[in-house]
Amino acid sequence: MALDEETRVRLSGVSTATLTTCLFKRGFRNVCLQDVHPVGPAQPAMVGEAFTLRLVPAREDLDTMAVYADPDHPQRKAIETCPAGHVLVIDSRGDARGASAGDILVTRLMVRGVAGIVTDGGFRDSPGIARLGFPAYHRRPSPPTGPIWHHAADIGLPIACGGVAVYPGDVMVGDAEGVVCIPAHLAAEVAAEAAEMTLYETFVEERVRAGDPLLGLYPASEASRAAFALWRRSRGR
Amino acid sequence: MALDEETRVRLSGVSTATLTTCLFKRGFRNVCLQDVHPVGPAQPAMVGEAFTLRLVPAREDLDTMAVYADPDHPQRKAIETCPAGHVLVIDSRGDARGASAGDILVTRLMVRGVAGIVTDGGFRDSPGIARLGFPAYHRRPSPPTGPIWHHAADIGLPIACGGVAVYPGDVMVGDAEGVVCIPAHLAAEVAAEAAEMTLYETFVEERVRAGDPLLGLYPASEASRAAFALWRRSRGR
Amino acid sequence: MALDEETRVRLSGVSTATLTTCLFKRGFRNVCLQDVHPVGPAQPAMVGEAFTLRLVPAREDLDTMAVYADPDHPQRKAIETCPAGHVLVIDSRGDARGASAGDILVTRLMVRGVAGIVTDGGFRDSPGIARLGFPAYHRRPSPPTGPIWHHAADIGLPIACGGVAVYPGDVMVGDAEGVVCIPAHLAAEVAAEAAEMTLYETFVEERVRAGDPLLGLYPASEASRAAFALWRRSRGR
Amino acid sequence: MALDEETRVRLSGVSTATLTTCLFKRGFRNVCLQDVHPVGPAQPAMVGEAFTLRLVPAREDLDTMAVYADPDHPQRKAIETCPAGHVLVIDSRGDARGASAGDILVTRLMVRGVAGIVTDGGFRDSPGIARLGFPAYHRRPSPPTGPIWHHAADIGLPIACGGVAVYPGDVMVGDAEGVVCIPAHLAAEVAAEAAEMTLYETFVEERVRAGDPLLGLYPASEASRAAFALWRRSRGR
Amino acid sequence: MALDEETRVRLSGVSTATLTTCLFKRGFRNVCLQDVHPVGPAQPAMVGEAFTLRLVPAREDLDTMAVYADPDHPQRKAIETCPAGHVLVIDSRGDARGASAGDILVTRLMVRGVAGIVTDGGFRDSPGIARLGFPAYHRRPSPPTGPIWHHAADIGLPIACGGVAVYPGDVMVGDAEGVVCIPAHLAAEVAAEAAEMTLYETFVEERVRAGDPLLGLYPASEASRAAFALWRRSRGR
Amino acid sequence: MALDEETRVRLSGVSTATLTTCLFKRGFRNVCLQDVHPVGPAQPAMVGEAFTLRLVPAREDLDTMAVYADPDHPQRKAIETCPAGHVLVIDSRGDARGASAGDILVTRLMVRGVAGIVTDGGFRDSPGIARLGFPAYHRRPSPPTGPIWHHAADIGLPIACGGVAVYPGDVMVGDAEGVVCIPAHLAAEVAAEAAEMTLYETFVEERVRAGDPLLGLYPASEASRAAFALWRRSRGR
Repeated sequence: MALDEETRVRLSGVSTATLTTCLFKRGFRNVCLQDVHPVGPAQPAMVGEAFTLRLVPAREDLDTMAVYADPDHPQRKAIETCPAGHVLVIDSRGDARGASAGDILVTRLMVRGVAGIVTDGGFRDSPGIARLGFPAYHRRPSPPTGPIWHHAADIGLPIACGGVAVYPGDVMVGDAEGVVCIPAHLAAEVAAEAAEMTLYETFVEERVRAGDPLLGLYPASEASRAAFALWRRSRGR
Repeated sequence: MALDEETRVRLSGVSTATLTTCLFKRGFRNVCLQDVHPVGPAQPAMVGEAFTLRLVPAREDLDTMAVYADPDHPQRKAIETCPAGHVLVIDSRGDARGASAGDILVTRLMVRGVAGIVTDGGFRDSPGIARLGFPAYHRRPSPPTGPIWHHAADIGLPIACGGVAVYPGDVMVGDAEGVVCIPAHLAAEVAAEAAEMTLYETFVEERVRAGDPLLGLYPASEASRAAFALWRRSRGR
Repeated sequence: MALDEETRVRLSGVSTATLTTCLFKRGFRNVCLQDVHPVGPAQPAMVGEAFTLRLVPAREDLDTMAVYADPDHPQRKAIETCPAGHVLVIDSRGDARGASAGDILVTRLMVRGVAGIVTDGGFRDSPGIARLGFPAYHRRPSPPTGPIWHHAADIGLPIACGGVAVYPGDVMVGDAEGVVCIPAHLAAEVAAEAAEMTLYETFVEERVRAGDPLLGLYPASEASRAAFALWRRSRGR
Repeated sequence: MALDEETRVRLSGVSTATLTTCLFKRGFRNVCLQDVHPVGPAQPAMVGEAFTLRLVPAREDLDTMAVYADPDHPQRKAIETCPAGHVLVIDSRGDARGASAGDILVTRLMVRGVAGIVTDGGFRDSPGIARLGFPAYHRRPSPPTGPIWHHAADIGLPIACGGVAVYPGDVMVGDAEGVVCIPAHLAAEVAAEAAEMTLYETFVEERVRAGDPLLGLYPASEASRAAFALWRRSRGR
Repeated sequence: MALDEETRVRLSGVSTATLTTCLFKRGFRNVCLQDVHPVGPAQPAMVGEAFTLRLVPAREDLDTMAVYADPDHPQRKAIETCPAGHVLVIDSRGDARGASAGDILVTRLMVRGVAGIVTDGGFRDSPGIARLGFPAYHRRPSPPTGPIWHHAADIGLPIACGGVAVYPGDVMVGDAEGVVCIPAHLAAEVAAEAAEMTLYETFVEERVRAGDPLLGLYPASEASRAAFALWRRSRGR
Repeated sequence: MALDEETRVRLSGVSTATLTTCLFKRGFRNVCLQDVHPVGPAQPAMVGEAFTLRLVPAREDLDTMAVYADPDHPQRKAIETCPAGHVLVIDSRGDARGASAGDILVTRLMVRGVAGIVTDGGFRDSPGIARLGFPAYHRRPSPPTGPIWHHAADIGLPIACGGVAVYPGDVMVGDAEGVVCIPAHLAAEVAAEAAEMTLYETFVEERVRAGDPLLGLYPASEASRAAFALWRRSRGR
């Protein structure tokens, strides 16, 4: 159930807000990562399949600066093996006292064609990350080096991130507000529905700016749907 | 005790910080909404009487997307009936897991001449709200659609917002730091005093930049008051 | 053990992130003030020795606006006596419900040549402080006047700030991510090591952007150290 | 849809844990008041319809000890008008810094035949309340008198309590673990189902103590249902 | 302004709840230590003047097990010098991750005739402390040895404890609900008033149990005051 | 490195407080599970090797009551396969909104000879668990059925519990204060040292009750060690 190009394009053009509505209609209430924010104010939107990394608390005898020399260290391995077009999602237990990653690692991800990085902890060197123009989401800046608080445990398992279950292969979408996790099997249908909703909301926004009241317009009524059909045709969309 | 124009103008020119001082002198300690921030970095200041909306937690059988079709739905009714020049203040129990409102509703408020919107929860489509240049205050962005966590219960009652009691008709003032709630019967006198204090502080700021120490200047002494009188006269204020 | 000029310059050129690594190597895990952020997005970096001020909770009979008339009031005294080149660090018990200081006081500090101000509470008039271009760090904006929640107790004692022990004379370094406290006796050696690390990381960043993988580069290997030596020489650093 | 006697009896014999399962099967996820605990370790179970009282934050000029002299003060009115057999449920915004009620008021409720009292704030005189042997639930003991932090706003509206929506007439059930709120229209059917489940779990508990594994027993299988039918008949239940 | 015997006796017979009311009438809102609970369920009430100890966060190079060998270590010194009849009050910054003290130290305090111990952190060996039958108050049990998180900084300064300002010499009163701090100069008058209120509340409790409604009784009316006078005389109080 | 009988016996006789001291001396600061408490006030002490279960947040389509019918459901499998003498440790992400387990499952564990159960979430049917007299530790009672908030993900991995890293095979020790996790390779040496310390503290406790000051006794001096040697011999320990 790989993410097809049409779905990717559609998801790039819709908001996380709209996606939560589509998923709520299907019974999903908990899809938006809580307290996970864009690192930079102007970073591009993010779409990609989840590639997961799990951190547990550090232990003083195991977690020293020496861990990074190990080529099999799960954090470093995640950076080098997360597939292009995927999003590296890190379960940091919501703990931003120590960094989940820093700018050198994020740069490497970017160079490798990865679609973005998400943690419910914090990044260090976050001003540098913000300058990359790469989709990166965290809780807050966290200068302290990772091994002070975190131990990279494993890759590719279901994780918690921002209070949401993220399964490898789920589709992560991020915009300027935050990040939504779409269960893999729903990505295509939700993308299609969200694209339609977005178009209707563009029409609504225009009508509201022109002075129309909400009633009969949002949510849609028969009359507003007819007006929308005209509007849409006139714009060739 | 409607908000008169002179008071409105005065309140537009003073800071929330100064207002807390004036209210503290009158025995009020808890007037500044905690953890309620401007949505946009450059939105205009806000002054207006409170029009209240109260949310309680959602219940799965009552709160679905269908609620919005009801013309009497309290949230939609609040958007259409909040008087021009007033501020819509929403008691979201400090819960930003689901949205208190989104950009279409806020646009409608703006078009209707409402003075601002405040919640102790979060708004969705917050980047769009920020672009409106309309005074909007919340805790943090919240993409999830409202009915996932909130049920609009009623309009026009005393509420809690950001840990502060807000009574309908109280005067809400917002600047780049946050929002203060002034009990209605004190608005005029507090506005007058705050305007005076603000002028004095402009003078102090000038003196401090010129190298004067704080002692004898801030708080004012007889000497500083005399210097201020001169300064004031020379500027025709 | 006053802060020498070479150390000050070195510390101005390194990040708080790098400093936490150097200190972690020496066994220090808790040196980065938690939840303490720059007030302005573009304020300069900060380096200076800690000059401490301690706040305890306000008491209604002791803490009124009248306290500021006292020339010995510890907050005002701290503003007037914090030595040039030092950083005023305020223990606000992490409580941002009332202000730790405001823009007039911060302006006075700046005029006096102080190197910065840090609190684990909040500043009022924070938009004004942000415009000063002066290093100021807090938890979040806090309009309410100080005596509502805080009593200035004393100056010059060891304090807690952001969960970190700060001893008078410790070296405070701040950048766009936050603030680190370096024990005084380690400042020079840590500054030297951090400056070296920073140079190596500049080299790494260049290599990673050029497509090099992390392994063998970060952390350094014998090969990468050799390449670095060449790179360094070629740039005369 | 008054609470009938059979339902009341059934609900007195089942646990809040079992009720959450019955409600989850019907799509309700948020029915158990979070962080609301029994005041006394040995108080009786509680069943009754919700009678609601809503508190907002105190305001210094309105909330003094004088408020209690008013015969229409909502808190006092709630104590005197909450019907026998009902439960007084107080929305204290989860704030236990000031008391929601004290032992004299709770004694009066008990004398009046009320079924229990619940707040998501705290009670004062809680050791006295614990001695009453009356069902009372709160977050934690809270000695400070109510008007320091709370203003009694109104009676009989939908409220939030412990993060759960409570509508007047909903059925509140409390045991030694906490409190569950059952939507009024579901009380009878949920009570019947929960009573059945409880009986089955008694059987399971017996089997598990005797050494049976969980598989095939819990959840029930055809075989275990047959064994249960026998067990049940043999006990005449 | 030492605590006289009559005041001590009176304070031993009133509740912390009643004391908060007396202090609120005098304008004090923040006198009850938040989230500070008795260690044992049956420990005696506590009355005594505050003797303060202040902890700051531990630093790895300063805070090792070796600190306790120093006869001037502030925590050990506090244990040996806190005067009999006083209460040792510890500012632990609300941090219960490491212990503020343990059972051996508390035993020593008890043997020395000290009146009680209070922290807004946690005690270790708390089951042993509970068995002492000595007034001890904390946030929650905390097995980890103190130097992991705390550094004892100094003795005899104003401190924060449970969010309340405690000045040396203030009168600390504890019961089964928690701890109240009475400003020293108000102890005698508050004790007298609280003793009177307590007697009236005993009368009210009796009337309410007998079926009287609250109105006209609580708060007192002319009629109820007359009945109370009779009741009081008849009991010789 | 299985837990030998001598170590098990020693660990049964020492406190979690003492164990944190022994581990701190070896550089371990974070070994005591935070906010994890005994379910029952009188449950026996706990010693056993960790057998881990990991929960992630629930997803509405995956987590229904039907999951428990699956014989491979990780929670049920953990209950049936956790070895006798081991402790089942559950990573519930500190989330007590839904239950980690209930009394039937805990009874089954007990019958199977398991040494205890620990979660950083909550148990349902906790009064029933308390009556079992079986070592069970959690954050607080949690009636809601597990699948509302939790999904059992896997067994036998390193986890976080109460903010501490727990590796399968680590030795979990619980007493009336809480739970400590001892890295497997240190269990024997720490047990021996802790047993010695405990004996010395028994001696100290006796001396302190007899009136000895702390200095020269705690920590031990040459003199006190000599006295202890005598005391010990006289008691044949």
